[in-house]
Amino acid sequence: MDREALIAAIRTRQSFLCVGLDSDLEKLPSSFSKDAAGMLAFNKAIIAATKAYCVAYKPNTAFYEVLGKEGWAVLEETIAAIPDTHFIIADAKRGDIGNTSRQYAKAFFEGLQCDAVTVAPYMGEDSVAPFLQFPGKWAIVLALTSNAGSRDFQHLTDQKPFYQHVLAQSQQWGTPENLMYVVGATQAEALSTIRDIVPDHFLLVPGIGAQGGRLEDVARYGLNKDIGLLVNASRSILFASQDDDFQEAASHAAQEIQIKMRNLLEHHKLL
Amino acid sequence: MDREALIAAIRTRQSFLCVGLDSDLEKLPSSFSKDAAGMLAFNKAIIAATKAYCVAYKPNTAFYEVLGKEGWAVLEETIAAIPDTHFIIADAKRGDIGNTSRQYAKAFFEGLQCDAVTVAPYMGEDSVAPFLQFPGKWAIVLALTSNAGSRDFQHLTDQKPFYQHVLAQSQQWGTPENLMYVVGATQAEALSTIRDIVPDHFLLVPGIGAQGGRLEDVARYGLNKDIGLLVNASRSILFASQDDDFQEAASHAAQEIQIKMRNLLEHHKLL
Repeated sequence: MDREALIAAIRTRQSFLCVGLDSDLEKLPSSFSKDAAGMLAFNKAIIAATKAYCVAYKPNTAFYEVLGKEGWAVLEETIAAIPDTHFIIADAKRGDIGNTSRQYAKAFFEGLQCDAVTVAPYMGEDSVAPFLQFPGKWAIVLALTSNAGSRDFQHLTDQKPFYQHVLAQSQQWGTPENLMYVVGATQAEALSTIRDIVPDHFLLVPGIGAQGGRLEDVARYGLNKDIGLLVNASRSILFASQDDDFQEAASHAAQEIQIKMRNLLEHHKLL
Repeated sequence: MDREALIAAIRTRQSFLCVGLDSDLEKLPSSFSKDAAGMLAFNKAIIAATKAYCVAYKPNTAFYEVLGKEGWAVLEETIAAIPDTHFIIADAKRGDIGNTSRQYAKAFFEGLQCDAVTVAPYMGEDSVAPFLQFPGKWAIVLALTSNAGSRDFQHLTDQKPFYQHVLAQSQQWGTPENLMYVVGATQAEALSTIRDIVPDHFLLVPGIGAQGGRLEDVARYGLNKDIGLLVNASRSILFASQDDDFQEAASHAAQEIQIKMRNLLEHHKLL
């Protein structure tokens, strides 16, 4: 899905919500079996419950790989169950030397038919570039992440913080048509600086909900003229209830965010 | 496999060679089918041809994921085909927020029964720590990689180069019993500095052979009193010949490195 289609989808659905399919087996409602079949059934129920309120889905590969080859099959079938109208992000945080990254790009773009893959920047340009060579596909580079460990290295300074070097340098590897950045919602205070460096790029923002970031702050500092945000929620939607009403609860949690997003888009005159 | 057993295996086999199972389908000898079955048969042939000369195998997950769920099955069966006497590294370069990294650790240590996983440091302590909580298992943190892109960020300075921050800080997260570092052989000039920072840790050194690093330089600057090195070769062994004699050629290429390693170990009085 290209940038134009993504922006159109956001305007149509009045939502920039991405639902993170971090389907931890241990947390599935008791009516699901704690295995690959249970996980797939749960994912399908979540997709059905939330697709009216979101524009993107983001399965995190860790929760699938833990089930081995059966987990990879669930990942394939989950992606197949996502409607064509939705943007699909493999949250895989890959990155390797060039000829190896090219294999990852093929795995996620050609094999799994994802629209985007999250990529770690540590290994530099040749580790990211192969993800930028597929028309209509995207690399989403980790810039400033939402976790406690983001303080360990991302703020180290060489005139400016390390994450700002990542933003400044990596934007030369691609364009706002094939490159996005991960910026944690827990780092909302950094968003205005980030917008100075990458005014046009889409940002994928995890960390609202369970991790504590505020949607209003993300919108205030992160929205640009083309909206330019995908905000992810995982656990707060998937496990809104772990009882029989989980689907209704997930739907309600997603709708609540969508309504806030619509109001924010209207407030910022973007609808 | 714990540190003591690894050191014993190196002394027994008089080799610190790791064979990288980067089994690119396009490069398989013509007698193999270009599919999952062909890849598994090739891997088994390579393992049989090289096991006398190496102490470790390192499948890179990218080359398996590109085949989807069938590729993950090949990864599982390849690992099952590696003798118990050998150390197994999943070259996966994973790393995510804590609860997610824990899923990756379970996938590779419990699911795939690997001894070690390579881990990207960008997300900091909580992204690495879950890999350090499995007895006898290892995290191998990227420090200074062998590719061109290593120049983009790893040498940025905040008093010292970024990769040195990674070494200094991350060694506090674990011990030489559960933590290793990736240091590219193409960066041999940095190895003596690295040995000052992490004198005791094992280093996993890719980049000899196809990428151009020299084994003698790696040994001179990288060996420590417990040997402390695993040196990887992939393409120069796997695809030493792409004809019917590939197995003999792979065996010969591995043996050639093993002989050099034995001589280096003797020269440095480590056997």
